[in-house]
Amino acid sequence: MTAMRTISQDRFGGPEVLHEVERPRPEPGPTEILVRVHAAGVNPVDAKTRATGYLLGELPFVLGWDVSGVVEAVGFGVTLFRPGDEVFGMPLFPREAGAYAEYVVAPTRHFAPKPAALDHPHAAALPLVGLTAWQSLVETAHLQAGQRVLVHAAAGGVGHVAVQLAKARGAHVIGTASAAKHDFLRELGVDEPIDYTTADFAEQVRDVDVVFDTVGGDIGVRSVPVVRPGGTVVTILGNTLPALAEAAAGREVRAAAVLCEPDRLGLTALADLVEGGALRTELDAVLPLAQAGKAHELIESGRTRGKIVLTP
Amino acid sequence: MTAMRTISQDRFGGPEVLHEVERPRPEPGPTEILVRVHAAGVNPVDAKTRATGYLLGELPFVLGWDVSGVVEAVGFGVTLFRPGDEVFGMPLFPREAGAYAEYVVAPTRHFAPKPAALDHPHAAALPLVGLTAWQSLVETAHLQAGQRVLVHAAAGGVGHVAVQLAKARGAHVIGTASAAKHDFLRELGVDEPIDYTTADFAEQVRDVDVVFDTVGGDIGVRSVPVVRPGGTVVTILGNTLPALAEAAAGREVRAAAVLCEPDRLGLTALADLVEGGALRTELDAVLPLAQAGKAHELIESGRTRGKIVLTP
Repeated sequence: MTAMRTISQDRFGGPEVLHEVERPRPEPGPTEILVRVHAAGVNPVDAKTRATGYLLGELPFVLGWDVSGVVEAVGFGVTLFRPGDEVFGMPLFPREAGAYAEYVVAPTRHFAPKPAALDHPHAAALPLVGLTAWQSLVETAHLQAGQRVLVHAAAGGVGHVAVQLAKARGAHVIGTASAAKHDFLRELGVDEPIDYTTADFAEQVRDVDVVFDTVGGDIGVRSVPVVRPGGTVVTILGNTLPALAEAAAGREVRAAAVLCEPDRLGLTALADLVEGGALRTELDAVLPLAQAGKAHELIESGRTRGKIVLTP
Repeated sequence: MTAMRTISQDRFGGPEVLHEVERPRPEPGPTEILVRVHAAGVNPVDAKTRATGYLLGELPFVLGWDVSGVVEAVGFGVTLFRPGDEVFGMPLFPREAGAYAEYVVAPTRHFAPKPAALDHPHAAALPLVGLTAWQSLVETAHLQAGQRVLVHAAAGGVGHVAVQLAKARGAHVIGTASAAKHDFLRELGVDEPIDYTTADFAEQVRDVDVVFDTVGGDIGVRSVPVVRPGGTVVTILGNTLPALAEAAAGREVRAAAVLCEPDRLGLTALADLVEGGALRTELDAVLPLAQAGKAHELIESGRTRGKIVLTP
């Protein structure tokens, strides 16, 4: 059995629990592909799962839900891809991870052809945040041209993709970030950058159709008054949904929480936007796989601009 | 914990190993839905898995990969469906099954809204055979209008859907069945019914662009000479692929084996065809869940016309 390098953990804790371990290279089952990882995206949900188990229960495990790479082998019954194809996508989120490694196995339809316009690190930055933004703004909030959308943490991993998606759909985009990031927001397509650090955003914004909360805490609840009747607040911090739903009830505002699901329909839509020049991913840092702990320190600092990516 | 009725098995064997067992009702995990099963399709792969384990390894297990029903509950982060929605689709094939039961859990994007034109039994007959036909003819063979396609066992579960898909794409459809089923083939849209029982199909057919083998054995290999150069033979009997690929090599014919993968993109395409009047499922028998053994006897007889469905 061929071995491969992985970043594994056998206890929950800080970034220091991440360490290099050799594991057997997985084999693709029926309908699955084996992908040689050229780059693996790092997401806040990785850090949460590292620290608490969150979506993955049993130790030891290998984190990593964002992949860009090359198909190494295909399982029984697979015809969509062949060895050598460049692909991007996700393993069986949320039940399995494994992209902090040289190889990862995934259902074939959790992947799509990598956009030629992106190199592997930029493509690895896209699946989880891109599907999260797509499934929140398009499939849940049904964002339309001409609507007003407020994106919280618009310079963050999910936020910076959400801004571009909203802009590509013809929406008027309001985005929050500290003033130092407002030039970046404008580059992404934000029409109205809001500095949430000097004044309450709720006093600077009104009559929006859709609020996208990528922050959590009380941001969702505090956003309800800025939404017009019939509008929607979507959060990706599901633990805030009960309070959000309570605040939204009686104000004719819809409250929803989204956890992204791997889906090639969404991946293909994202790839089309990339190829059309309407979407790009911003990298804050590209680190070698062995520095996964450093990557987690960065992602937990909350001060990144764009995404962190690991390369085996 | 609420109990539910299931048809389970704790050993491999004939239809008699299937028996009714109460099990805890499952709960939907993050990104998953809990579906109240109104009808569950029975497929040949169910019988093979019952007898040998095939796709599901560890006993005991509950078979069933085809579902039509009503969303009972949604897991964390799900917004595509809400309780009460009528849906059709598949559990986590091929790793998990479970539709021979009152309730089943599945990833949200393995389901799509049930076409209003189909009742639950007819909708439950569609996902596995429909996705198999779609992924074989459309996504693998790229069947085009004006092309000639040969469908083996055109009156069978996969075959009768494949004929309609091919016809809807504007292909010229040649289908094999015994003469008694030729009227049925013509109703489905077959242009040239072939009686394989009285003469070798390979002497009656030539110059086809695509062969779809839903039978196995030596049918794929014997089909290679009827394919024009550049054409494709797709089989759903993966064990025949090595011999098929060898026969196809050197004749400029592509050989491929498909195992269906749950995918709402395909489900939605199938539902659109149903709503447009281009696709229907044919039921051979609808039996109560308790008669799952009888259903397996029927499916193993190889003499069904259309599909077998169970209703809890």
